[in-house]
Amino acid sequence: MCRFLAWVGKQRYLDELVLEQEQSLVIQSRNALIGKTPINADGFGLAWYSDRKMPCFYKDTHPAWSDANLKQLAHHTQSRLFLAHVRASTGTATSRNNCHPFGVGRWSFMHNGQAGGHDLIRQELDAMIPAHLYGQRFGATESEAIFLIAHGEGLETDPIGAMARAVARVELVSSRHKVLPYMRFAACWSDGERVYAARYASDKYAPSLHYRTCKDGIIISSEPLDGNNEGWIEIQSNTAIETEGSLVRTHSFRPFEALDQVEVA
Amino acid sequence: MCRFLAWVGKQRYLDELVLEQEQSLVIQSRNALIGKTPINADGFGLAWYSDRKMPCFYKDTHPAWSDANLKQLAHHTQSRLFLAHVRASTGTATSRNNCHPFGVGRWSFMHNGQAGGHDLIRQELDAMIPAHLYGQRFGATESEAIFLIAHGEGLETDPIGAMARAVARVELVSSRHKVLPYMRFAACWSDGERVYAARYASDKYAPSLHYRTCKDGIIISSEPLDGNNEGWIEIQSNTAIETEGSLVRTHSFRPFEALDQVEVA
Amino acid sequence: MCRFLAWVGKQRYLDELVLEQEQSLVIQSRNALIGKTPINADGFGLAWYSDRKMPCFYKDTHPAWSDANLKQLAHHTQSRLFLAHVRASTGTATSRNNCHPFGVGRWSFMHNGQAGGHDLIRQELDAMIPAHLYGQRFGATESEAIFLIAHGEGLETDPIGAMARAVARVELVSSRHKVLPYMRFAACWSDGERVYAARYASDKYAPSLHYRTCKDGIIISSEPLDGNNEGWIEIQSNTAIETEGSLVRTHSFRPFEALDQVEVA
Amino acid sequence: MCRFLAWVGKQRYLDELVLEQEQSLVIQSRNALIGKTPINADGFGLAWYSDRKMPCFYKDTHPAWSDANLKQLAHHTQSRLFLAHVRASTGTATSRNNCHPFGVGRWSFMHNGQAGGHDLIRQELDAMIPAHLYGQRFGATESEAIFLIAHGEGLETDPIGAMARAVARVELVSSRHKVLPYMRFAACWSDGERVYAARYASDKYAPSLHYRTCKDGIIISSEPLDGNNEGWIEIQSNTAIETEGSLVRTHSFRPFEALDQVEVA
Repeated sequence: MCRFLAWVGKQRYLDELVLEQEQSLVIQSRNALIGKTPINADGFGLAWYSDRKMPCFYKDTHPAWSDANLKQLAHHTQSRLFLAHVRASTGTATSRNNCHPFGVGRWSFMHNGQAGGHDLIRQELDAMIPAHLYGQRFGATESEAIFLIAHGEGLETDPIGAMARAVARVELVSSRHKVLPYMRFAACWSDGERVYAARYASDKYAPSLHYRTCKDGIIISSEPLDGNNEGWIEIQSNTAIETEGSLVRTHSFRPFEALDQVEVA
Repeated sequence: MCRFLAWVGKQRYLDELVLEQEQSLVIQSRNALIGKTPINADGFGLAWYSDRKMPCFYKDTHPAWSDANLKQLAHHTQSRLFLAHVRASTGTATSRNNCHPFGVGRWSFMHNGQAGGHDLIRQELDAMIPAHLYGQRFGATESEAIFLIAHGEGLETDPIGAMARAVARVELVSSRHKVLPYMRFAACWSDGERVYAARYASDKYAPSLHYRTCKDGIIISSEPLDGNNEGWIEIQSNTAIETEGSLVRTHSFRPFEALDQVEVA
Repeated sequence: MCRFLAWVGKQRYLDELVLEQEQSLVIQSRNALIGKTPINADGFGLAWYSDRKMPCFYKDTHPAWSDANLKQLAHHTQSRLFLAHVRASTGTATSRNNCHPFGVGRWSFMHNGQAGGHDLIRQELDAMIPAHLYGQRFGATESEAIFLIAHGEGLETDPIGAMARAVARVELVSSRHKVLPYMRFAACWSDGERVYAARYASDKYAPSLHYRTCKDGIIISSEPLDGNNEGWIEIQSNTAIETEGSLVRTHSFRPFEALDQVEVA
Repeated sequence: MCRFLAWVGKQRYLDELVLEQEQSLVIQSRNALIGKTPINADGFGLAWYSDRKMPCFYKDTHPAWSDANLKQLAHHTQSRLFLAHVRASTGTATSRNNCHPFGVGRWSFMHNGQAGGHDLIRQELDAMIPAHLYGQRFGATESEAIFLIAHGEGLETDPIGAMARAVARVELVSSRHKVLPYMRFAACWSDGERVYAARYASDKYAPSLHYRTCKDGIIISSEPLDGNNEGWIEIQSNTAIETEGSLVRTHSFRPFEALDQVEVA
């Protein structure tokens, strides 16, 4: 399991959220308060949108708290939309290629969760990735596989439905191999304009996910960034959100229903 | 392209070959004399056989010349059979998971070469890896894929034939995608008892490969480790060698013939 | 603060103590039970004595639990005398040069503790290092400085007295700058034959230190390696131990008395 | 010896100079054309001035050509003033703390060269660093020492004179120890407004240094960034330059004269 946060709104410095909050992401890397994995120190990553076409990625394998570059970059970089992630491996190696966020074109994606039986199912997941995107299969995580499979499901035009279908397809594989939990999924993704986030599990334990509307924008985070929790809204399981400007829209996120709709059609 | 060496014989310290020769492997990492890639600084690796069942692997992503641990370990470690490799990436990331040698059970493997169109063919190569070995597909190189596919071809009982068939199968994929060169292959592999090495290319440019019989053992190396080349024998293209004690046996290594034999049968 | 262990006795594999115990050193890197710093993930190091003249050092900056090389090396390396350390930085950078154990000639040294006001006192500590050893001042920790200053105090012939005097000299500097705590010190050092360990603080909070005599040798460790604590002896503050074969001798370790004796003489 | 470049002028993306030129800095890291060290692969660093008070530093220990983060950051970061450096160690470890540029407050500094007898003179250099800056002595290079000593000589108010005196003081130490070459020095430093660069040696072999005035700004570089050398001006030995807007002023840079002036006064 991992921790992450995202910001969309007025341009701001990354370190205001990544480092300076009472329960900032870097503090969560040593001491997450929600969930079963207090230490999230198997690498980290940032993705931010600048004036270039593609987002910028900075990822590395050390704990977020000990990376001198992270502190520098987060202090000097401003962005109106960024994603940040600290990783706790559920089995795959600590490697830059396994660090989130992942990117394809304008899109970025990060995930907290797992699909059961990783080593048993990975070859099948890899086969489900669209051939033209396989050159962007850099690592071995099921997270990156879900993201690439979602592209094959039409992420560009149907960001929430495609992600739901990708989650369903991966869960089908893990449930066939019967290694529990089949799917735990809290994720956040963006095309550089809107931010999407969703929460789901095949059992009762969907990983935590929250958001908060501030004066100048919206924060999405695995856990509240301050002590008193004021203003934070918990995203419920089977639910996705979508930002549009300062608005947050709520959608259903039921992977198998999304899959049925397509397959019936 | 990369550089490598292997030793089998009397137990000796690794640094005698890796660091102390006139044209040692670490010197080759800065200044290889044969081949088109003088700098081989995208990581390195050692595999040695000790008293444990499996070989020991030490791999990292810095240039071999600047790794303080490598100097220490090579100075203190003795082995009767070891492999050492310095990497020049032909496209995939500089990542520990992409560093040679690779290991499965008792077997270790290292490679210098490439298969054309890496990003176009990788998904097909991944699908050819036996399912029960996919958990050991850690990186993204075609080298590791060839090794795992060779296991599926029966490497345990037919070490040279299985490797030849794996090379043929990979070349079939790259030639179908028409990205030249289809296959360049100089490799070395071992089960901890014998060392095997082979040289082959789909064109005229098979990567260099040499061996030398010394008083206490046999060295296999991409290029001679000393200036005068005395005693070094060049392995010809379409040829494999196999050590047995202090003997070196020569075999034919014609991938498509090897494949035909099986497929006819 | 950090965690460490040492072994002297019959040759054994390093992973038996570093990885396989209920409260092994790698488990302590995520979850130390004694002391105020449960996470010790700012690098790690091993030093072991082989057939070579000098000890072998393997050190790196990732958390011990995520380093694939550490697992390999600890599994394949046997030694009759080794030191192992996991680091929690008290301020200096996460850098290989700041990882313990440190080495000079046959000697190795590792430390858990701190001297107050590190940045204020470091230049004075550096000036106290013998000129001929300054080429071995690689990092910035006060730990390494104490070790090098101890060499100047005659560590070779008076291993416990010299270390005590070095600790006193460093404490004199930190107490002059009035940054508390002046000195916290639990350390372990060896010449490849005997292992020495000492515990001391300028206040009541000397870092934990234990040892245990087993059938085939002696373990010295920051905390017991098993749950029930059976057979573990706590080393008291102001006390040093010295191994000789299977014997453990206890000595007084009172830095200022040691310094007075020399200065009177 | 190393390679470096700096830009001051209109805001531009870093990768235009670091990656996209015919003889870009990243190409120089594999194949420098001038000087005796074609490979500069022992780490790299960037410093750029943003809207924050201090410059931003990104430094790491891999070869510049293989660092995925470097490519990303240089592509997305714009600055009106930046420094970039690729390192070839002359002895000290490959460590982030030894990577250039170095920073103190608003100032950044990078160097290509060496002072003879590094390990013999380092303790004396360390003692010459102003006490209040010793907390910023992170590594072991003589380059960082020269920069910190220059601060003690009044870099803030006399950027060229103070640097010259620092160089003279360090050369006095190395010449006393009689290890040649006493001083080779090509360097570039900035307060975020102006860029300074100087070239000097105690013998005939001052490291190369060039600049070029473009439409929108000034490039300073170890070697010309294109093949035809058009428009590039070689800075002569014993000479410093200073930018002011689009102007380049030339100054004498004679370390011992600079020192004499102060000492007479």
